[in-house]
Amino acid sequence: MEEGKNKKAVVLLSGGLDSATAMAIALDEGYEVHAVSFRYGQRHIIELDCANEQARAGAMEHKIVDIDLGSFGGSALTDDIDVPKHGHIGELTDEIPVTYVPARNTVFLSYALAWAEVLGAFDIFIGVNALDYSGYPDCRPEFIAAFESMANLATVAGVQGNRLTIHAPLIDLTKAGIIKRGLDLGVDYAKTTSCYDPAPDGRSCGHCDSCLLRLKGFEDAGEVDPRPYIED
Amino acid sequence: MEEGKNKKAVVLLSGGLDSATAMAIALDEGYEVHAVSFRYGQRHIIELDCANEQARAGAMEHKIVDIDLGSFGGSALTDDIDVPKHGHIGELTDEIPVTYVPARNTVFLSYALAWAEVLGAFDIFIGVNALDYSGYPDCRPEFIAAFESMANLATVAGVQGNRLTIHAPLIDLTKAGIIKRGLDLGVDYAKTTSCYDPAPDGRSCGHCDSCLLRLKGFEDAGEVDPRPYIED
Repeated sequence: MEEGKNKKAVVLLSGGLDSATAMAIALDEGYEVHAVSFRYGQRHIIELDCANEQARAGAMEHKIVDIDLGSFGGSALTDDIDVPKHGHIGELTDEIPVTYVPARNTVFLSYALAWAEVLGAFDIFIGVNALDYSGYPDCRPEFIAAFESMANLATVAGVQGNRLTIHAPLIDLTKAGIIKRGLDLGVDYAKTTSCYDPAPDGRSCGHCDSCLLRLKGFEDAGEVDPRPYIED
Repeated sequence: MEEGKNKKAVVLLSGGLDSATAMAIALDEGYEVHAVSFRYGQRHIIELDCANEQARAGAMEHKIVDIDLGSFGGSALTDDIDVPKHGHIGELTDEIPVTYVPARNTVFLSYALAWAEVLGAFDIFIGVNALDYSGYPDCRPEFIAAFESMANLATVAGVQGNRLTIHAPLIDLTKAGIIKRGLDLGVDYAKTTSCYDPAPDGRSCGHCDSCLLRLKGFEDAGEVDPRPYIED
């Protein structure tokens, strides 16, 4: 657990369950965490409030970066496309969801890379995981590996022989596995949000794909989700 | 010259000589050009004025995207670090210049990728060239190739078997070669700027590394640079 002792890491922090867990893992491994979140035209700002709360739990600093991704359009998370609602988990499909934001993880990791270079950090943490593979191409292990290869050619650090590593510590975990790991590390999941369509007061809808995956994760882990839901 | 007939391409347009030439090449190859420029904390806005002028010369549309790269610091182009002035070209060195902006081309290409995905474009043009190799790691052919590989794993297009190509048509050209090519294609280089430290009215300094490279390029090409300089 001492591998990153005193070393800086940039951690992508979205306000969600996964990235909160990824940050806790980075801290547990001894990294000094520099967290970064993005205001990218997402329709609900509760995500950034949650990211702030998580960062306060252990990050050395937290930057929120404005990015203009919404201006290109193309996603239900930034456009006026309806977010699909399902009654039960069985309706999830293998198709690319309309909630996919074009090249989002590529853009986010590129910013993390820029900041890492300025900080002199050689480690970046991102909370992508196995459940996202089927829908989001930029959540797959082969994407993470390709980004890491590119990053080592893109930067002065790479040119000078310092190996930059993209850590995706959740990539092979189930949602239940992530939740168990995070609870062991003391993550306060009440201060994380996963909902695609929360109420104005921040409560989760309980019916979107993301809520369904989260609730099933807590159920499979034998735990109760501390997040407030609209129907509570 | 018909290879891109009726096909959309995203072209990174900086307002400089190189990207103006890259756009002219994309147009000459028959692409419908969607140009994108970035307001990223650069100290001189003349670059965006020039990008606008170039886009008007043939792009279908032009987006200027605000990006918050300057907030990470680390470059003389976005920070209050002095831009070095040299008396003559011989003082250029192989070291990483202080004008290097961390991960800039990675961030720019990531945005281009996001837009390409929304547009249904499979071609991105960037005006990097051989003279930048020594100083900027993200101008090398191996970087461009690695970005292309990553991009094909990052996107729905890639997953669905459409090959995305990053075109760097200037990469093996000298500055003189670029200028000759651009003049053949009708590029108006008066409406491009290369200076790291222009006067408030937009005239170039004639002494920074970038002006020196440009002026030598015109000299080697046997042409006169139409850009206004402070000493004119």
